[in-house]
Amino acid sequence: MSGPEPDTPPITRILGEFVAVHPSCGWDASVEREARRTILNWLGCAIGASRHASVEGALAAIHELAPGAQSSVLGRDDRVDMAGAALVNGISAHAFDFDDTHLKTIIHPAAPIASAAFSLAEHSGADGRRFIDSLVLGVEVACRVGNAIYPDHYDRGWHITGSVGMLGAAAASARVLGLDAARTALALGIAASQPAGVREQFGSMTKSLHAGAAAQSGLMAALLARHGFTASERALEAKRGLLRTFSTKCDWTEITGELGKRFEISYNTYKPFACGVVIHPAIDGCVQLREAHGLRAADIEQVKLKVHPLVLELTGKTSPRSGLEGKFSVYHACAAGIIFGQAAESEFSDEIVARPDVVALRQRIRAEVDPAIAEDAADVTIACRDGRGLHVFVEHAIGSLERPMSDGDLERKFHALVDPVLGHERASTLIECCAALEEIKDLRALTSLARPAPQAGCA
Amino acid sequence: MSGPEPDTPPITRILGEFVAVHPSCGWDASVEREARRTILNWLGCAIGASRHASVEGALAAIHELAPGAQSSVLGRDDRVDMAGAALVNGISAHAFDFDDTHLKTIIHPAAPIASAAFSLAEHSGADGRRFIDSLVLGVEVACRVGNAIYPDHYDRGWHITGSVGMLGAAAASARVLGLDAARTALALGIAASQPAGVREQFGSMTKSLHAGAAAQSGLMAALLARHGFTASERALEAKRGLLRTFSTKCDWTEITGELGKRFEISYNTYKPFACGVVIHPAIDGCVQLREAHGLRAADIEQVKLKVHPLVLELTGKTSPRSGLEGKFSVYHACAAGIIFGQAAESEFSDEIVARPDVVALRQRIRAEVDPAIAEDAADVTIACRDGRGLHVFVEHAIGSLERPMSDGDLERKFHALVDPVLGHERASTLIECCAALEEIKDLRALTSLARPAPQAGCA
Repeated sequence: MSGPEPDTPPITRILGEFVAVHPSCGWDASVEREARRTILNWLGCAIGASRHASVEGALAAIHELAPGAQSSVLGRDDRVDMAGAALVNGISAHAFDFDDTHLKTIIHPAAPIASAAFSLAEHSGADGRRFIDSLVLGVEVACRVGNAIYPDHYDRGWHITGSVGMLGAAAASARVLGLDAARTALALGIAASQPAGVREQFGSMTKSLHAGAAAQSGLMAALLARHGFTASERALEAKRGLLRTFSTKCDWTEITGELGKRFEISYNTYKPFACGVVIHPAIDGCVQLREAHGLRAADIEQVKLKVHPLVLELTGKTSPRSGLEGKFSVYHACAAGIIFGQAAESEFSDEIVARPDVVALRQRIRAEVDPAIAEDAADVTIACRDGRGLHVFVEHAIGSLERPMSDGDLERKFHALVDPVLGHERASTLIECCAALEEIKDLRALTSLARPAPQAGCA
Repeated sequence: MSGPEPDTPPITRILGEFVAVHPSCGWDASVEREARRTILNWLGCAIGASRHASVEGALAAIHELAPGAQSSVLGRDDRVDMAGAALVNGISAHAFDFDDTHLKTIIHPAAPIASAAFSLAEHSGADGRRFIDSLVLGVEVACRVGNAIYPDHYDRGWHITGSVGMLGAAAASARVLGLDAARTALALGIAASQPAGVREQFGSMTKSLHAGAAAQSGLMAALLARHGFTASERALEAKRGLLRTFSTKCDWTEITGELGKRFEISYNTYKPFACGVVIHPAIDGCVQLREAHGLRAADIEQVKLKVHPLVLELTGKTSPRSGLEGKFSVYHACAAGIIFGQAAESEFSDEIVARPDVVALRQRIRAEVDPAIAEDAADVTIACRDGRGLHVFVEHAIGSLERPMSDGDLERKFHALVDPVLGHERASTLIECCAALEEIKDLRALTSLARPAPQAGCA
């Protein structure tokens, strides 16, 4: 542990105190509304992916540990220890690449943060209010740290959802436990030693593990701090602390400025398409041209995309071999958008990625980088076989802050994800429960609804 | 996942295949001997620290998860799930800073690697031979990766024991499970997303957590791979893989050169002093002058140390406030060496660090960096109150490869650590068991001896 430096504010202590003492629901109604939207979207994604191969694999590994039955695996009848549940729910919430995005940092906040807080809150019988508070404050910590180090940290190769997500998970877990400011700072400090994730894993199950591992280590960090485990009091900001170890850019004012006044969860967004947010503008443009001109694949000679540089860096796979790899192919995603008019989870199955008409159209799509194009924009030109040239410039993709998903959009997305697992009626009840979450006295009433086996209504 | 690059060998696959298919005991007798010395030293450290506050805290947190009773917490009667046991044993093995050191990289291999392999081997009833094999191969993976990226990776701020240790733990765990080459490579890939540890934590319990978290995530990576969880096949070496994300230096030949011919465990060393290895030469010099001249603290006007730059970077605390912080103070450690003639765990208690005569001598010690001095060397000059000037230049500290601890030294160290926990007789029996480890058919016979409650002899 090094001594303090004059220009470096005591970030670890400041955030610990903020998380511990900020009043319950100490924000305006728009923040509260966004928290509920975040929770609904998280719950839908986790339940929807609860039979994904990554969830089956992770659960099989956890069952080898003979875990206690403390917390629910969302969308399943399995109950495992709360750290294991945080891990699996973190994986399932992210497995479809369909979860929420804090666009300024490309952090997917809910998978690591809500999964940790929820498993802990469920086991401890906490109420809905405490869960909402912990989520808002956990998201605040993760996204402010992300703001401080993005983009340098991400450019180095880190998957920021897992490499700062554990801080948000630790903060949220500490708030669920009601730790004091000093212990909350220690929980952040303990979590600071366990970043999860490098970007090379994109396209494999380990990408989702980043969110799950962040949830698990954040939850454990709070339990360790509760039991007197120590960490550096300057684990985040010191010269050999986390942030300066894995980022050259460290803008402390992003963490301290207006803390407790503006809330980062206000800037959370939800995906209309089940893949990385960077390719949403291009898909949106393809779907728009399809709808406006009644396009079919057979009509198309060539599609030309001009995109932000990250699009090809992250999703440049020209020949995806599986549904999961298809999520990292702007070519597949745009072909799906044109053929099906959507790019939901069903368009990223192994079968669709291998279907001859999809492959044939994918091979007629060209993408080039245009540094002048913003991250949420894309330029789409389609040359038709009949000679027509179609064009659209998407300034802000659907699902962005400027063109947000409506509450109705989110409920339709929830039904599409949850109905196949729990049935339409149960999905509707869960939507009602989320809308009235702050009135739920014991979150176990909610989790009993998120299991396939028959359950009572929302208590 | 990016495509292969011409100059980058497929390290993840090469290491996976090596770990899976290298023959049992496929090395010469000197490697085998060093493996047994490594195990004896690891076991002694873990049992010796089994009542350390960090172990109590970690166990209390794990007990909140209602773990199954699968594997032993060494030196205690507690049994927890095997991943939790790997975590706690990794913490206790490192808690005294008294464990083994691969000097070329400053990795402490056994705490993460032996702890993972042992907990898994114990639960699965594996034999001693399998445990030794897994340790040798796990150390090989971690230390070769360390060789490839040291010192740049370490200089950035990472605690290399935890940030490559999880790869060794995954390799060893995969070998215990008998995974094939492809699944072993996946285990390495999964572990590659979970480095643990930044150096700012030195002086807090979280330093030991790095070893424990690496053990736990390595073990879980192997279980995940066994159950079909996927990772990038190039998770280590790709552009956005682990090694290039957290190190500029990536010398692949350190990983591929003479693989299976020379073994890094041959270069493992064991500490005579219970603190960071960088200050051992200075302590050694102080103890040598004390012995040669019958020095007492009252005789001394001033001690002047010339040391390698890392000494002040890592252990420059001038006013340590606790026993643990004392381990990061070259001033305290040298004062202890002069006053007590040793610097074992007992010299790093809170009481000794605060004792007036120790504090007074500590304040008369000056240290300056001399870039010409090697990491295992130190120059010690003592000015006595009677006008004498004493001097010694330590070229290689006791415990280094050039002046290794003898088997007798290691057994004395083991007794000093274990006798207070299990009694002298049990400690002697454990030494005999380690000497004949390859004859043990079921490691549970050994763990039953490492518990305080009365047990039968080594089966």
